[in-house]
Amino acid sequence: MTSGCVYSCCTSKASMAGILRRAFGLKQTLRFAKVSPPCRLLAPENNSAASCNLYVSGSGARALTTKKAEKSKSAAPERLPFSRVTEEDVEYFRSILPGRTITDPDLLESNNVDWLKSVKGSSEVLLRPQTTAEVSQILRYCNSRNLAVNPQGGNTGLVGGSVPVYDEIILSTSLMNNVLSFDGVSGILTCQAGCVLENLSLYLEERDYIMPLDLGAKGSCHIGGNVATNAGGLRLLRYGSLRGTVLGLEVVLADGRVLDCLATLRKDNTGYDLKQLFIGSEGTLGVITAVSILCPRKPVSVNVVFLGCETFEQLLKTFQLCRGMLGEILSAFEFLDSECMRLLNTHLKLPNPISDCPFYIVIETAGSDPNHDSEKLHHFLEEAMNTCVVTDGTVATEKSKIKALWSMRERVTEALTHDGFTYKYDISLPVEQIYQLVTDMRAHLGDRARSVVGYGHVGDGNLHLNITSPAKNPALLAAIEPFVYEWTATRRAASARSTAWA
Amino acid sequence: MTSGCVYSCCTSKASMAGILRRAFGLKQTLRFAKVSPPCRLLAPENNSAASCNLYVSGSGARALTTKKAEKSKSAAPERLPFSRVTEEDVEYFRSILPGRTITDPDLLESNNVDWLKSVKGSSEVLLRPQTTAEVSQILRYCNSRNLAVNPQGGNTGLVGGSVPVYDEIILSTSLMNNVLSFDGVSGILTCQAGCVLENLSLYLEERDYIMPLDLGAKGSCHIGGNVATNAGGLRLLRYGSLRGTVLGLEVVLADGRVLDCLATLRKDNTGYDLKQLFIGSEGTLGVITAVSILCPRKPVSVNVVFLGCETFEQLLKTFQLCRGMLGEILSAFEFLDSECMRLLNTHLKLPNPISDCPFYIVIETAGSDPNHDSEKLHHFLEEAMNTCVVTDGTVATEKSKIKALWSMRERVTEALTHDGFTYKYDISLPVEQIYQLVTDMRAHLGDRARSVVGYGHVGDGNLHLNITSPAKNPALLAAIEPFVYEWTATRRAASARSTAWA
Repeated sequence: MTSGCVYSCCTSKASMAGILRRAFGLKQTLRFAKVSPPCRLLAPENNSAASCNLYVSGSGARALTTKKAEKSKSAAPERLPFSRVTEEDVEYFRSILPGRTITDPDLLESNNVDWLKSVKGSSEVLLRPQTTAEVSQILRYCNSRNLAVNPQGGNTGLVGGSVPVYDEIILSTSLMNNVLSFDGVSGILTCQAGCVLENLSLYLEERDYIMPLDLGAKGSCHIGGNVATNAGGLRLLRYGSLRGTVLGLEVVLADGRVLDCLATLRKDNTGYDLKQLFIGSEGTLGVITAVSILCPRKPVSVNVVFLGCETFEQLLKTFQLCRGMLGEILSAFEFLDSECMRLLNTHLKLPNPISDCPFYIVIETAGSDPNHDSEKLHHFLEEAMNTCVVTDGTVATEKSKIKALWSMRERVTEALTHDGFTYKYDISLPVEQIYQLVTDMRAHLGDRARSVVGYGHVGDGNLHLNITSPAKNPALLAAIEPFVYEWTATRRAASARSTAWA
Repeated sequence: MTSGCVYSCCTSKASMAGILRRAFGLKQTLRFAKVSPPCRLLAPENNSAASCNLYVSGSGARALTTKKAEKSKSAAPERLPFSRVTEEDVEYFRSILPGRTITDPDLLESNNVDWLKSVKGSSEVLLRPQTTAEVSQILRYCNSRNLAVNPQGGNTGLVGGSVPVYDEIILSTSLMNNVLSFDGVSGILTCQAGCVLENLSLYLEERDYIMPLDLGAKGSCHIGGNVATNAGGLRLLRYGSLRGTVLGLEVVLADGRVLDCLATLRKDNTGYDLKQLFIGSEGTLGVITAVSILCPRKPVSVNVVFLGCETFEQLLKTFQLCRGMLGEILSAFEFLDSECMRLLNTHLKLPNPISDCPFYIVIETAGSDPNHDSEKLHHFLEEAMNTCVVTDGTVATEKSKIKALWSMRERVTEALTHDGFTYKYDISLPVEQIYQLVTDMRAHLGDRARSVVGYGHVGDGNLHLNITSPAKNPALLAAIEPFVYEWTATRRAASARSTAWA
């Protein structure tokens, strides 16, 4: 029970791709064995007819690599020998995407920079296809011309994976935003990859359903990007991962071929489940163009509780208590520490809804009977207070108050951006161990960091460790890494229950 | 919403493998493009060093292919040019598996025949490894010697996939039956592949957890076989598919290499999720040797309701009503038709617990508060009776009565074996369409069949169509197939939302 993984570490993805190559004779080439999480799909150098060639590149998570910027060898890979976009290429794109081939640098600006403004590309062409056929045409052409392509969804990613490293063509899914079908009996939604998560939620709410995932970036993120990164979000505890709820995918491969796995069956055991390879593959195997997903019924009753705890041990005890007493209506169990609260107060002027505590918990219940739910909640809170695992708390049943309590958790990322340059890590560990890393990191960095905060999904054993600095700070980065990776690695059991060849 | 699939049809699996081969340059060879569901892992003809070669073979679902039996070209494939087991091979196996290398034909008998006694192999060697290292040794040796291998779990499969076609060596997981670890906080169980599902359920019940899947064959089936066939079972509606609940797998490939994806993290986004390829691949890509799985808390309160309906439309209305009113406590919604009830009465002397109806429903609720659950159930039943969607019913809250009601659904398969030779089909369709096939098949076959029955998982859109005959009957089979496949295929939308290259 001591295995662990840091998502923003690339080593495992690189070695996994190696495994795939060995196992299946994949002709995929990883150019940068030692780089980095934000992988993206680039067109291949040569066009071997028989198989699908995908070349994976990436940028250091915080590498600023514009043409003018000084290149740091440790941070950014060399530009690969892809072709440069010519006037003829742009003419071709204009012929197939009239009015949707953007070359104006001002219009391209926001697509070249990530949400955190920590990495910047220098793409000169933004393509906005509306259909799968257009995506296929684009990729087939780029493949034949050896042009690099960077697929982009809502550009809400925090690890630099959604923007170009150099001058890759940006293929945006923003105009692929149609719902293709919805079945009110089965709750199965089929839509294009560029649908914004919140728009899908609103569409479904009118039909008495909800999306099985929810996350802070819902107002901008695309469902295709959610699937490509296997986003967990705030409801994983209740509705499980996208591997279970995504029923089908349509994907365009690098050479333009369309893989149609867009099943809309609750259960489909025919053949190998190829679509699973694309869930979480971050665009390295293809561009997701459509998704079918199983949606849960909209709950009749929703409650949110905001609680305070003295220690992380008490927080874990509260989690256990709440799993037992709230049972089937528990839909989220999230946490933030007092440092997060300080940043919410300072930068966003969000007042603490309860008294000051070292740890805060956001619990959501979703059920079909308001009376039953409030009774369960009441019993749980009584028990939690009586056994002193929590010291203070407040409950919301009204929509605006629910939203206000949720914002204490959802807006931590935003508060961090106001605190300075942020080094972000997304770590999965057995839940008992997740907070120790924050404590150890704080002790390790001392006053070298401005803030060291921890928050995240207790139910999923998923910690967001964030460290801020007044400005970008290579010395601080050197103090954080490889410390964070080594710390996580030492939490692995001697038996190394990680994905590897024995 | 008209796509459909018949699991027992092989075409899609064969074409999917073709897709995999084209997509990833797999060196896999499908020898029998037009054969059949029960694929199994055979050692390769030659041993290419660089990549993993898996040759897939199979038997017609009902092909009786003993050495002595007359071979039907349409039913069984030719034996491939694999080596014959020699005395030296047996000596080697005895040296690595002393006392666990079985060659006595009487002892091998039950491993050569499937549960339905519809297909029979003629294997002369049964190997019973206890560890992953032993499985690896066996496969490495068989690969080097070009010996065919048939992995076998509980041998409870109904499509002939678990027994040899010819003289393949049987590799049984029955002695790989240890629980490796269980974490009472996270509910994550790690165990060897040969653990019997019911034993795992009992182990977990003592620890206040349950397995996320349950099925009629639980007393014999192995968890490794459940995962290899992506079994759905009776709880899929509530806890989702194995693709979401299986957190990790350990698999031995045909050449003996061990792929360790045995993660025990609730969320793990590092690298490609290779283990997904093995879930549902029916042993064609490797032998599953260990599984880690996320288990739900044991519900405090369980109720089972047995209801009767006049029409399938009313049954579907009851399903919709029950999803709304039972909400988060609904854990199963199963059905059987009056023909199933007749067979249960006739062959197993199980009396109908309610009055005679054309359709019967088994609903299970599982929750954390007995009072809340019974109140929800009461309201639902009141509404169902008042709106006349159900005509009769009975409720069980006591364990033995719950078991008795469940047996009306779980023992249909057993009742069918007493009715004659059974042709079995396992079909996924949008739930509104699933029963029409039974009606159409009945009309199509007339008195050529003894019984045509339908039962299955309404919540998953999964129908079990079974047709019996006094004895094996090629003329009847010819009347059933390709009718059943064509019927299913016509239910696909013109846009063919099936897995295929566009």
